[in-house]
Amino acid sequence: MREVYIIGVGMTSFGKFPECSVIELGQRACWEAIQDANIPPKAIQAAYCGHARTGRLLGRECGVGQSILWELGISGIPILSVGNFCASGSTALRDAWLAIASGMYDLVLAIGVEKLTARSGKGKPLTSDGVELLTNMGFSPPTFFAQMAIRHMHDFGTTREQLALVAVKNRKNACYNPRAQYRKEVTLEEVLNAPMIVEPLTLLSCCPTGDGGAAAILASKEMAQRYGNKPILLAASVLRSGEYRACREITSLEATVKAAKEAYEQAGVGPGDIEVAEVHDCFTPAEIVHYEDLGFCAKGEGGRFIEEGHSRIGGKVAVNTSGGLLSKGHPLGATGIAQVAEIVWQLRGEAGDRQVEGARVGLTHCAGGFQESLELAEVSSVTVNILMRK
Amino acid sequence: MREVYIIGVGMTSFGKFPECSVIELGQRACWEAIQDANIPPKAIQAAYCGHARTGRLLGRECGVGQSILWELGISGIPILSVGNFCASGSTALRDAWLAIASGMYDLVLAIGVEKLTARSGKGKPLTSDGVELLTNMGFSPPTFFAQMAIRHMHDFGTTREQLALVAVKNRKNACYNPRAQYRKEVTLEEVLNAPMIVEPLTLLSCCPTGDGGAAAILASKEMAQRYGNKPILLAASVLRSGEYRACREITSLEATVKAAKEAYEQAGVGPGDIEVAEVHDCFTPAEIVHYEDLGFCAKGEGGRFIEEGHSRIGGKVAVNTSGGLLSKGHPLGATGIAQVAEIVWQLRGEAGDRQVEGARVGLTHCAGGFQESLELAEVSSVTVNILMRK
Repeated sequence: MREVYIIGVGMTSFGKFPECSVIELGQRACWEAIQDANIPPKAIQAAYCGHARTGRLLGRECGVGQSILWELGISGIPILSVGNFCASGSTALRDAWLAIASGMYDLVLAIGVEKLTARSGKGKPLTSDGVELLTNMGFSPPTFFAQMAIRHMHDFGTTREQLALVAVKNRKNACYNPRAQYRKEVTLEEVLNAPMIVEPLTLLSCCPTGDGGAAAILASKEMAQRYGNKPILLAASVLRSGEYRACREITSLEATVKAAKEAYEQAGVGPGDIEVAEVHDCFTPAEIVHYEDLGFCAKGEGGRFIEEGHSRIGGKVAVNTSGGLLSKGHPLGATGIAQVAEIVWQLRGEAGDRQVEGARVGLTHCAGGFQESLELAEVSSVTVNILMRK
Repeated sequence: MREVYIIGVGMTSFGKFPECSVIELGQRACWEAIQDANIPPKAIQAAYCGHARTGRLLGRECGVGQSILWELGISGIPILSVGNFCASGSTALRDAWLAIASGMYDLVLAIGVEKLTARSGKGKPLTSDGVELLTNMGFSPPTFFAQMAIRHMHDFGTTREQLALVAVKNRKNACYNPRAQYRKEVTLEEVLNAPMIVEPLTLLSCCPTGDGGAAAILASKEMAQRYGNKPILLAASVLRSGEYRACREITSLEATVKAAKEAYEQAGVGPGDIEVAEVHDCFTPAEIVHYEDLGFCAKGEGGRFIEEGHSRIGGKVAVNTSGGLLSKGHPLGATGIAQVAEIVWQLRGEAGDRQVEGARVGLTHCAGGFQESLELAEVSSVTVNILMRK
């Protein structure tokens, strides 16, 4: 397999843009990525477009990538839709990585888009496909992560305050990210006292819904050398689905543990080498569990890890410098590629007031969807990418 | 890139199965493919699942592959949804081809599923995403192919009878395919006199809607030698999107011409080498145009090609021995992989009463969706595969 570089990234601001079509969101992100890479659009040889809910919400289940690219003058090449719930964008990026690593292509575009404001007035809450039985029994993403929190608190002494600190940190980071959906600091008290969604998760412990697009141009070494504006090595790109088990430990996502192990091996680094990371903080306890699953700290120590400041900018590993899903926003299909854009900016030293000084190695982590079996739910897919400045 | 083999195929019967979930359809097809390949299910290293309308019709936009495989004991591996309209299944197969050709994996599963009976009572006709403007002006797949027919008749003297012969031939072939949706011969007069849908296309000139699943196991040469029950070389697998143009010739799909050229080069064969082919006969004129675009005959001679019997079993190239979309049925996402299953059975000599004697080289062709621009529509994506018995 060949080395793969990211030579251009783009993303829209995340937020509520009811006036903007999902196609326009994608076009803006792609155009920025193309300009960032400084490539002629027609040099792109294939495109993978990730989206999770455009079919159900917009009647656009296929052909989203074609429509985005058609009027940017890009057609004729292989273009396809890729879906994997909240990991749809990162799955598209992983496909693009494989397309270049294989030797088949030298310049490939990964796109992620979503337009959740289209939900307005549609009634039913946004839950995962594939958990119909559990959903009828009350299951939803917040209830899943609330259970995770309660068990983590029981088993390891994690506190409500530690959980809330995730929201405080990520909101603070978002203040320095002009593309974030929420850019106003919140205090620990505000998080704790916000309206309760599912015990112990308050409104500020949950990521918002919103719209957005993100894109990345992936290239072979040769093309990175020809065009590359500070090319960043995509040293590992891993996708795993959740594993069927009769019972599970709810304070860990086994798919994350295994995907991270595979990614560290692929990149030849360990968790201690990661200086900046974007992880799937859809709800506050998720980020704490991801610290542990990704190896940033030992099992059970995630609460103390944030409390001691190890995951803030300037700490051992700066986590969710972009504001994360909690504050930057979470337009499902766009999230995984926006995470990669943030790490690219960090490794290039272009992250402005949220820059992690001298960062050379970064990681992204996305978790998407649920599968149900008997009385339990398991995460549907996880992606982990490791990026390096060479 | 490495050689890729197909070592197992499976498909459900196509038809209307309102009692059967899309997950069950996929499971049946996968299980047959796994048994056909004689591999342990857990040896599968990655899976690509193609579907086009499961989100809009069933609320299952993501995770379909995970749900299909979960209860077959396959989990933990990379699994993702792939969408490309009617070419969704063949796009999933093409991804699986790349995953093996790259050297990344040795055993990959491609799945295609669809459940169109879920449309019942949903009102609006099934049209393509991405052509909202044209759809509001009366565009639909039958109107597109009716225009193609009328122009072909005008330019080349193609007759209604020649168009109708496509339906007659494919229905006859379907009589020998126990998995086909319609297995009763029709006469030329019956096709011509069936209720008119869009002039000159009658009801019997149009493919039906239905449900179905199909699957294929792709393998590296080493795995094909270890497990292979008559492995078939997937000598070329090509995906292209339609090209943006200000005006177009409606009697040809340029994406087919270009994809076929690329596939012939990849496989090192020419159109004259193809002995058996499954092509995208969604409407009768489509098959005639595909003869020309794939190089089976010269431009404008498609009508005479069928009239002179060159595309029947025993002719120059037996086209749609399975019955094609017109008679075997067209559950969108399943179609592209079902086409490949038919060619695999033909090249293995397992096609029963519809066997093409001694066939060694076969082709599949799928066309999916439309993109709109100004006053015109262009096909969204085309796939072409070339299979060979070595």
